[in-house]
Amino acid sequence: MDMRPIGVFDSGLGGLTAVRSLRQILPEENLIYFGDTARVPYGGRSRDTILKYARQDVRFLRSFDLKAIVIACGTISTTSLDALQAENDLPIIGVVEPTCRRAVLVTKAKKVGIIATLASIRSGAYEAAIRRLDPEVEVTGRPCPLFVPLVENGRIQRGDVVIETVAREYLEPLKATGIDTLILGCTHYPLLTEIIADIMGPEVTLVSAGEESAFELKRMLKTRDLRADESRQGTAEFYVSERTEDFERIASVFLQEDLHHAARRIDIDQYGI
Amino acid sequence: MDMRPIGVFDSGLGGLTAVRSLRQILPEENLIYFGDTARVPYGGRSRDTILKYARQDVRFLRSFDLKAIVIACGTISTTSLDALQAENDLPIIGVVEPTCRRAVLVTKAKKVGIIATLASIRSGAYEAAIRRLDPEVEVTGRPCPLFVPLVENGRIQRGDVVIETVAREYLEPLKATGIDTLILGCTHYPLLTEIIADIMGPEVTLVSAGEESAFELKRMLKTRDLRADESRQGTAEFYVSERTEDFERIASVFLQEDLHHAARRIDIDQYGI
Repeated sequence: MDMRPIGVFDSGLGGLTAVRSLRQILPEENLIYFGDTARVPYGGRSRDTILKYARQDVRFLRSFDLKAIVIACGTISTTSLDALQAENDLPIIGVVEPTCRRAVLVTKAKKVGIIATLASIRSGAYEAAIRRLDPEVEVTGRPCPLFVPLVENGRIQRGDVVIETVAREYLEPLKATGIDTLILGCTHYPLLTEIIADIMGPEVTLVSAGEESAFELKRMLKTRDLRADESRQGTAEFYVSERTEDFERIASVFLQEDLHHAARRIDIDQYGI
Repeated sequence: MDMRPIGVFDSGLGGLTAVRSLRQILPEENLIYFGDTARVPYGGRSRDTILKYARQDVRFLRSFDLKAIVIACGTISTTSLDALQAENDLPIIGVVEPTCRRAVLVTKAKKVGIIATLASIRSGAYEAAIRRLDPEVEVTGRPCPLFVPLVENGRIQRGDVVIETVAREYLEPLKATGIDTLILGCTHYPLLTEIIADIMGPEVTLVSAGEESAFELKRMLKTRDLRADESRQGTAEFYVSERTEDFERIASVFLQEDLHHAARRIDIDQYGI
């Protein structure tokens, strides 16, 4: 048994959808979340900028005595996971591998689609991971740059012509390729599950990155005998790098639960290298 | 006569709409533009973060021998102009004062509207400036957080249901207040002029921040005898803090002209204080 907390981080608050999955799948674990709200979004930035930021994020999280880290961000996972794993002596779980394993398991047509930020699609990381798992699976990626700002402005309801028009433009060409599995490769996208499912239809299975990485973490903790006492209720602490006034309201949207924790603000620039 | 260049900066590439105005109104001047594309957008960040970034931006620009600086960004102008002017021994022009002077001059109903980023509206800077100029003018502000990502994703065409729906939601309540003058308080918004004018109708005059600061600069250079030789054609150099691959394409949109200048990338973190 290991009661040390698990660190979770993201470029912003979108990674709270992964916290939500973690609290459902591993309710006994203590979580420490860091959202780099001062420098969000990472999605359009270059690989070396993202790696620099990710290193600082990990350095901050490691000021706590952690047993594992979850990168709750597609962009950081696709660009920086290998480097972070090589530099740190604790398990670090990204979203790409677990999600791709699930997608390869689910697809019957051997045609998988991926929607994510521009940086994630550009990195080719999902395609490469799927090809390693099954070279016969055909992968089609599609960046959806407006999904993050639309979600952050609350445009997540069925019947909203704005999100539905943008979603159709992004998704209909993907659907036309004949995929039967679609990876939601960005933390914000699970909030659009209904709208995406409406467009893709019942024959396409949606695979959510945050959920798969929570299952992967559970397996890993079990294998290494690192799980907390299962009879207890885990806690969650929240840190951000930008002002925290709106945190409770926004966090409630992503966590899909009433949140009664304030976030503490830290200066991420002090964790430079 | 003074042939030294003028520095122009913005949180990203939106400030290029101000460069466009400057090239029309002061074609003989040399311009050095810096767009902080690594840290864009500033609009949702806190006042102290924006001031910190703005100081670094000015520090970079002042590595050149400049005769003046134009802040081509509503967010930086509303939060940081006073501090930057106090700290620097060269003229710095923001967008707020010139724009408000114009709006006060234009309004007959004495009712002025302002659309801008959340940080600009929160700052209350436009309202305060207009009240100083004419306490009888009633000011209504409205943040339009989706305009910047929509413009950056090219949603600027008449007939696009996405931008038209969002614009109507933002603007119709403003129109209902009876304003006859609307300040476009963010560099991206001039690209939406047609769509905004369609909704507001011919009875509402649009005042563009970038254009007014170019006129203000012209007056200031004349008064201080700092103008360049008017018979010459000025040059423009472009610097950004993030990868530059897409610069030409995006810059052409904002400048509304074919651009044959590449941008150079600099590391803005090296200009820390």
